[in-house]
Amino acid sequence: MSSHLESEIREQPEVLQRLLEEERTNIEQVADAIRKLAPNFIVLAARGSSDNAARYGQYMFGTANGLTVALATPSLFTLYKQPPRMDGALVLGISQSGQSPDIVSVLEEGRRQGVLTVAITNDPHSSLAEVAEHTICLHTGPERSVAATKTYTASLMALAMLSTALGEDTKRSRALEALPDLISGVLTSAPDVINAAERYRYADTCVVVGRGYNYATAYEIALKLKELTYILAEPYSSADFQHGPLALVEHDFPVVAIVPEGRTAGELVELFRQLKEQGAELVIISARRDALGLAQTPLRLPAEVPDWLSPLVSVVPGQLFALGVALAKGFDPDHPRGLRKVTLTW
Amino acid sequence: MSSHLESEIREQPEVLQRLLEEERTNIEQVADAIRKLAPNFIVLAARGSSDNAARYGQYMFGTANGLTVALATPSLFTLYKQPPRMDGALVLGISQSGQSPDIVSVLEEGRRQGVLTVAITNDPHSSLAEVAEHTICLHTGPERSVAATKTYTASLMALAMLSTALGEDTKRSRALEALPDLISGVLTSAPDVINAAERYRYADTCVVVGRGYNYATAYEIALKLKELTYILAEPYSSADFQHGPLALVEHDFPVVAIVPEGRTAGELVELFRQLKEQGAELVIISARRDALGLAQTPLRLPAEVPDWLSPLVSVVPGQLFALGVALAKGFDPDHPRGLRKVTLTW
Repeated sequence: MSSHLESEIREQPEVLQRLLEEERTNIEQVADAIRKLAPNFIVLAARGSSDNAARYGQYMFGTANGLTVALATPSLFTLYKQPPRMDGALVLGISQSGQSPDIVSVLEEGRRQGVLTVAITNDPHSSLAEVAEHTICLHTGPERSVAATKTYTASLMALAMLSTALGEDTKRSRALEALPDLISGVLTSAPDVINAAERYRYADTCVVVGRGYNYATAYEIALKLKELTYILAEPYSSADFQHGPLALVEHDFPVVAIVPEGRTAGELVELFRQLKEQGAELVIISARRDALGLAQTPLRLPAEVPDWLSPLVSVVPGQLFALGVALAKGFDPDHPRGLRKVTLTW
Repeated sequence: MSSHLESEIREQPEVLQRLLEEERTNIEQVADAIRKLAPNFIVLAARGSSDNAARYGQYMFGTANGLTVALATPSLFTLYKQPPRMDGALVLGISQSGQSPDIVSVLEEGRRQGVLTVAITNDPHSSLAEVAEHTICLHTGPERSVAATKTYTASLMALAMLSTALGEDTKRSRALEALPDLISGVLTSAPDVINAAERYRYADTCVVVGRGYNYATAYEIALKLKELTYILAEPYSSADFQHGPLALVEHDFPVVAIVPEGRTAGELVELFRQLKEQGAELVIISARRDALGLAQTPLRLPAEVPDWLSPLVSVVPGQLFALGVALAKGFDPDHPRGLRKVTLTW
């Protein structure tokens, strides 16, 4: 019998299709409200997988909408009780459960200061939804696995839909509609990815490298590896990687990398060529032949995905890879030790 | 003969004293210019150790000055060439060399958009200083070791001085003056810390945990461990740690933790008590008896350091610890493999 985790990974095309259909009108109304207030910047509050989705938001709203995004430091609002001023900001909170008290605090303070607040959550009756002026619902249905997968891609989709609606960009809107099928395509190779992961049965450390839009993907794949396989997986942007951590990589050291089409590709291929010379073991998620050719474990993506949407597709082989390593190591993917589904951090 | 690294760690009280004396007037003028423009938020651009200093700035300007800080995503300015609007922002760049092209790009764009720009650098003739409207000089003298130590604490000091001048807070100003002596106090136990590090001769992974102001310290100590000892050291806030990575910690797993006085202490002590029960090996940097009592390797701090200034003091035992582990492993602390002093990332 397959795990909840695997079923939920496989549900993603259907979940994203539902989100596209059921939430479009609401997201357009939220975008109207935001356009009216013309915020100077966005404060984005999230934890865990949702914080990785927030990283995607940083690049998405930056490139597509020209908006600077500050990732909130919730402890200013909770532990220190000295929240910063947010005049001119849009305050956006992401939490699949809508129960994280520190994320709720950031939105409460936004309301108190009279700025626009938007919640992205899977539970429209949660505290987060109650405190926010507007709510975007993820419509994923219950997530039974402790490790988030479909709520993560749904959060990315909600952010991409909101950014696209804000920019009133019909071309981008059509690209969003093509996504569920592209992810279905990636899922056809699920058994191969899970088998290929067996090679990493005895790995206990790795780094995951991405850049730009896929900085988020590097963080999310690293988190799945940590949660499901107990591999100490550290995420990096390829730029920061050259400021120190490069020294870590020697013979046999596993490097998981996301190399999408677009402006970051050339730099990434060059970096991985160098790492290969240092003897690194490369797991490369890409549609590019030059990148895949460097990898001991190439995980192929479809070629038609634009850079700005690539994180929704490129995380999927990473989810399957983490599942495969967990199975090879003999761990139960639905019940990682020491974790709860809802984490109540202050 | 002692290493450049050790000499530079030991120089820190003198370096910070010089910065306090030589840069105070200039920093007050920069603060005046900022107050006049009353920015809505700060965009802070930095890489590597300077990015860790920026994390401190996020909490410092947030709590003391009520300013939201967005850490810049330089690739929006360079690779994607779609810089966000920064109306209402103060743009602050930190780079010890002042040569990092991506950080220079963020300040150039700030100038182009007509917002206030401030550079914090050790080289007042660097590209970063040339492009910025105002420059704060670190006055550390040349840093010969590839791993940054005195330029890191000097960057923290520059940020603390700027925040204090902005708030015109004379009580805080006196606290700043007490710092060099407090750090001298920590340095008297340098040989003990270096000896205690020998126990970690065969460690190859660890996590470094901090929160709030000392989230920056966790990042910086992890970076020193990676650069100098090739230990895969991953930094965490104690809040994020509970969203997944907690599962990593089992018997023998080394956890380095910073536990300052103040609002984060109670939560941290509770977390480390739990980790100890899971069999973790604890290296704890603290002035608190309850925290130190949990540690196999307690690294004692002076008791008189206020929470907001603690990162300047608490990083020092971490620097010495990383040096000690490097020596125990037989590595040359001045010439980590694969690193250059100035990293030209785009």
